[in-house]
Amino acid sequence: MNQLRVGIIGAAGYTGSELIRLIDLHPHLHLAFVAARENAGQRLGQVVPSTEGVHGLGELVLEAFDEGQAAAVGAQIDVAFTALPHAASARLGGALLDHGVQVIDLSADFRLRQLDTYQTWYGPHPRPELLERAVYGLPELYREQLAGARLIAAPGCYPTSAILPLAPLFRAGLLDAHNPLIVDGKSGVSGAGRKHGPSTHFPETSEGLRPYNVGGSHRHTPEMEQELSRAAGAEVRVLFTPQLVPTIRGILTTAYARPHPGVSAEQCRQAARDLYGDGLVTVLPEKRLPDTLHVRGSGRAQVNYAVDDRTGLLLAMCAIDNLARGASAQAMQAFNVSRGFEETLGVPRLAMFP
Amino acid sequence: MNQLRVGIIGAAGYTGSELIRLIDLHPHLHLAFVAARENAGQRLGQVVPSTEGVHGLGELVLEAFDEGQAAAVGAQIDVAFTALPHAASARLGGALLDHGVQVIDLSADFRLRQLDTYQTWYGPHPRPELLERAVYGLPELYREQLAGARLIAAPGCYPTSAILPLAPLFRAGLLDAHNPLIVDGKSGVSGAGRKHGPSTHFPETSEGLRPYNVGGSHRHTPEMEQELSRAAGAEVRVLFTPQLVPTIRGILTTAYARPHPGVSAEQCRQAARDLYGDGLVTVLPEKRLPDTLHVRGSGRAQVNYAVDDRTGLLLAMCAIDNLARGASAQAMQAFNVSRGFEETLGVPRLAMFP
Amino acid sequence: MNQLRVGIIGAAGYTGSELIRLIDLHPHLHLAFVAARENAGQRLGQVVPSTEGVHGLGELVLEAFDEGQAAAVGAQIDVAFTALPHAASARLGGALLDHGVQVIDLSADFRLRQLDTYQTWYGPHPRPELLERAVYGLPELYREQLAGARLIAAPGCYPTSAILPLAPLFRAGLLDAHNPLIVDGKSGVSGAGRKHGPSTHFPETSEGLRPYNVGGSHRHTPEMEQELSRAAGAEVRVLFTPQLVPTIRGILTTAYARPHPGVSAEQCRQAARDLYGDGLVTVLPEKRLPDTLHVRGSGRAQVNYAVDDRTGLLLAMCAIDNLARGASAQAMQAFNVSRGFEETLGVPRLAMFP
Amino acid sequence: MNQLRVGIIGAAGYTGSELIRLIDLHPHLHLAFVAARENAGQRLGQVVPSTEGVHGLGELVLEAFDEGQAAAVGAQIDVAFTALPHAASARLGGALLDHGVQVIDLSADFRLRQLDTYQTWYGPHPRPELLERAVYGLPELYREQLAGARLIAAPGCYPTSAILPLAPLFRAGLLDAHNPLIVDGKSGVSGAGRKHGPSTHFPETSEGLRPYNVGGSHRHTPEMEQELSRAAGAEVRVLFTPQLVPTIRGILTTAYARPHPGVSAEQCRQAARDLYGDGLVTVLPEKRLPDTLHVRGSGRAQVNYAVDDRTGLLLAMCAIDNLARGASAQAMQAFNVSRGFEETLGVPRLAMFP
Repeated sequence: MNQLRVGIIGAAGYTGSELIRLIDLHPHLHLAFVAARENAGQRLGQVVPSTEGVHGLGELVLEAFDEGQAAAVGAQIDVAFTALPHAASARLGGALLDHGVQVIDLSADFRLRQLDTYQTWYGPHPRPELLERAVYGLPELYREQLAGARLIAAPGCYPTSAILPLAPLFRAGLLDAHNPLIVDGKSGVSGAGRKHGPSTHFPETSEGLRPYNVGGSHRHTPEMEQELSRAAGAEVRVLFTPQLVPTIRGILTTAYARPHPGVSAEQCRQAARDLYGDGLVTVLPEKRLPDTLHVRGSGRAQVNYAVDDRTGLLLAMCAIDNLARGASAQAMQAFNVSRGFEETLGVPRLAMFP
Repeated sequence: MNQLRVGIIGAAGYTGSELIRLIDLHPHLHLAFVAARENAGQRLGQVVPSTEGVHGLGELVLEAFDEGQAAAVGAQIDVAFTALPHAASARLGGALLDHGVQVIDLSADFRLRQLDTYQTWYGPHPRPELLERAVYGLPELYREQLAGARLIAAPGCYPTSAILPLAPLFRAGLLDAHNPLIVDGKSGVSGAGRKHGPSTHFPETSEGLRPYNVGGSHRHTPEMEQELSRAAGAEVRVLFTPQLVPTIRGILTTAYARPHPGVSAEQCRQAARDLYGDGLVTVLPEKRLPDTLHVRGSGRAQVNYAVDDRTGLLLAMCAIDNLARGASAQAMQAFNVSRGFEETLGVPRLAMFP
Repeated sequence: MNQLRVGIIGAAGYTGSELIRLIDLHPHLHLAFVAARENAGQRLGQVVPSTEGVHGLGELVLEAFDEGQAAAVGAQIDVAFTALPHAASARLGGALLDHGVQVIDLSADFRLRQLDTYQTWYGPHPRPELLERAVYGLPELYREQLAGARLIAAPGCYPTSAILPLAPLFRAGLLDAHNPLIVDGKSGVSGAGRKHGPSTHFPETSEGLRPYNVGGSHRHTPEMEQELSRAAGAEVRVLFTPQLVPTIRGILTTAYARPHPGVSAEQCRQAARDLYGDGLVTVLPEKRLPDTLHVRGSGRAQVNYAVDDRTGLLLAMCAIDNLARGASAQAMQAFNVSRGFEETLGVPRLAMFP
Repeated sequence: MNQLRVGIIGAAGYTGSELIRLIDLHPHLHLAFVAARENAGQRLGQVVPSTEGVHGLGELVLEAFDEGQAAAVGAQIDVAFTALPHAASARLGGALLDHGVQVIDLSADFRLRQLDTYQTWYGPHPRPELLERAVYGLPELYREQLAGARLIAAPGCYPTSAILPLAPLFRAGLLDAHNPLIVDGKSGVSGAGRKHGPSTHFPETSEGLRPYNVGGSHRHTPEMEQELSRAAGAEVRVLFTPQLVPTIRGILTTAYARPHPGVSAEQCRQAARDLYGDGLVTVLPEKRLPDTLHVRGSGRAQVNYAVDDRTGLLLAMCAIDNLARGASAQAMQAFNVSRGFEETLGVPRLAMFP
């Protein structure tokens, strides 16, 4: 078949470079356009050093794409992955959509269904009318809605790590939705993005463990609540605490919930197996626990559960690669579903181990 | 003054090597005896490579100490730090105590006050009659009891990281003791000890994040419950989840509790400041969060608090160095209190930064 | 086309798990057989945890393959990648070759052309008569010889990192072959294999930098000398020093040589560009230096050169991923050449960045 | 005795924070003044987070010290450690010296004896007349000259790691000084200073190995040549290659030299033992090789040697902590010598292990 022409808007960041890697593995995709405002005019090989000297990639020149060129760019590409800061992403992604380009957006702009929730956490939305057209790109939950979708909102990294283990339990009615859910997340440093700063300087990171945005102030909170409430059919409250740990990639999330009396860990595993089958979410056997090392570089997630008899609480655990399953690989998987491709094209189902 | 003669029983492990470092900084201590069964006959410089070539240390020969030599060894030393697996530690530490040696024990053997709790979690106790003589070596809570103590139980690493931030809140009556406490702990790899294994092999550790001993099965759970219940004056239930993160040292603990209505984070900080003063536990200002990097190699702990308005839950956060404040430095601090020395002798109050 | 059936003999080690990842990316290969003596009877998902839950892989059972089953196994596979300790690899690889299986060997057994050199460094060779049939699997140097090859010796990791930057210079006559060559190699810890030990225990590795096998005693020395002597058409002497650095993957090699008078760094780059074209070896522009981060997980190497005017010496620098270009990816690339496949099938040409 | 009052000019950088740690361990020193232009007005606890909450340190306010206040500041302190960029360090250190303060300078400003060499590598020198008053602060080589010294130039980190293993060999006449010396250095990331940048951003550092300033362009080259030429009594040429490796601290240097015929590694060890005795430089036994892990946080260096029979070349290896022995601890040691204090006051002789 003919290859589809892909553009990446925001190619200089980590989700952008991860997309380049995945597109290069995808048999039906061809990288035709790359934009990155701050690096406009530079070769891709200078900005994403893994592409230096790579035939057909290293010599691509980064463009300073703005709305005015949407028609011209729209003529060059079939699909755009937009990976910009919020608001900018909706503005430019929207413009491309207007010109007939399929848009997979990796920002937060199209994840929240309620405009007022978006405005509370992010501010004004440049294209509010598009919210209802967007499909939340978590394929295991929205496979049918994704078929044919022209605007896909790739989920956030932390929300992915909370929704994957918990959604099947809420769907199966195993949890008490009235008890607040505690989501304790630990993320590798690439989650902070490519912009360096004091808190990502190697000497002050490599032996450090630290929380940030505590007390429920992290913007991924409403996204978790939205999706888990949908799964529960009831309003779910989440207390989410993010923490920085010194790995390059990886999120390990441990969630604490109150199950209905008598619910066992095995029932939770079974609910997850029922939803995930033998796809990209591995429900581990009883004694095996999730490990970010075992999913690194892949679209895979690992989940498992435990019940503490002493307190009656349930632990749901999940490991993902924040840049892969938590961003670019999940975006590619959702794109594949939208096009009817096999879900694992360009989505490694196997981690790089070690 | 004359230097006291110190012996380390279990000098080949990490708490042993940390003790050697601290003793070398202590003006009133002199390392006179080192024992390590598996390495008996080797020079300390071979086994603890930081001592190789160090005058007076590298040439010390490790002994295979057993109860039979307790009298002979007891004549050579004034103080013993015992850092052996549980049961062995009580047996040998007890023998030295019988011969007049002051014993600071770094195992779990003397931490639990209730024999049956010990038996449930650890098995038979070789010297149960000593339990009531032991003082729990957390100086900020037991300063008075430690004065003159001859048998000190140095607290566990994870319990230290949970008790330091929570005890002042329970003492001040700020928390609802009936709600189970969730303690989410993240530890660097030295917490697993010096014995190498697949889960500490660098290529399978450096980019991994993983829970272990989940579901309330970790042996530090009863120690947390004992001390927090004492602080609360009521029975406190703890769900503790340990997780391995790729740093050498450091524990970051995030605890989730239900405060009494209206309790603020600032009230929590004030309760902690009231207890800790300007000693080795730093209560951070409002916007500053604990970081293991900032306490590494020192006897210092950092604590802070946040309240989540949406769920009404409280976060208590604590960072320590698991080998220093979580083991050897805290043992040394407790020893100093027992002798009336300044608490920071041999206990760095400043981290190695970076 | 029909998929070729592949077996991995030694699937539990790191080059084995890396092969599994690459085979899964290769459109013409199907993993049909996995052997690993010590883990025989276990599922692949238990032993290579990235395959747990992966359809068609996680449930494969590791076999205890020995020579007696060579005929039976030979009937199940078309190609075998053998990744065993030396001698064992030649023995079992030889047996499969006898039964019509194409063998790509990742051990040292078929790399050295001179039997006596092998015996000096490794001991008795179980199948010396096969030495002359083996082709050294460095595609950029032996593309023609590899076409149709039935027995391929995948190069060692350190030798690859020394040969790639230096062979073009020797071929182009730019270096003085009479001066000993100094090869200073730095390797990530996966190069030590999957077997854990004290020197790979995370707490004693993560902040350590150390040489090992110094004084010319490392077994990769004769392999470097063989290939560089061939490139030079004269006997080249190498002093090779390996050093362990705390990354999971990656080799950075800095070699010091005396060039003929007047030779410039740009002449060296040009010689390398002439040999490597726009393939998997990137000759970096003048100001850009090799970095293992930029080749991680890929079959790519980066090389560059500098001349020091003060001493007249040349630096040749090379970065590879020791498990990918230094082992499994290069083996796959050589296999592709042997079959007339595109060289990058199953061989990522783009690193995972970051 | 009364404590001496110490000032640190440049307290916000890593050598500054390391000095604060060491001063706190020194029984005769009291930190009385801290300056840091960019952070002036902030509390030390905000800038050096390990001091937050530390009695007597965390509340110190950083000053914006300039020459105009030299008299006023000079009245408050007895000793100044200056840790500023070159030129600024000489200017402010010189001003304090003019007002009677003893100055230990950690910049490059007083290391080179020849003004023209300084100018070639660094540009104009603000106080050239002070060059002849400065003593090079490597205590093992200049113990006598340091006694009573008022202006001490603390050596550079890489030069320390090259001079310590090689100076005894040159002094003992074991090396051929006419052959260029190759110094291959590997440094942890704290050597790049506290200023964050793309090449120290954790995700692009943690799995990277890379050279920089290659081809003899690093400014530490002339310092190595100066001191090794002095030791040799002949002009020594050095090709120095620095490389960045992902540890926080540590330099491992491997130097390649041509020894006089027949010189053995044991002769080299003996020459080093003769110079270093049982002080802070450990000459390791034959089979033990230097490791930065074993000197971390201490003033200790480890050295060893090997001779390669095949090429006749000698390897000299050295491990130090770049911030401790390579900067602040060596500065403190030199200061101790200048005052007649025991050399290890405030200078840990034991590494933090692990």
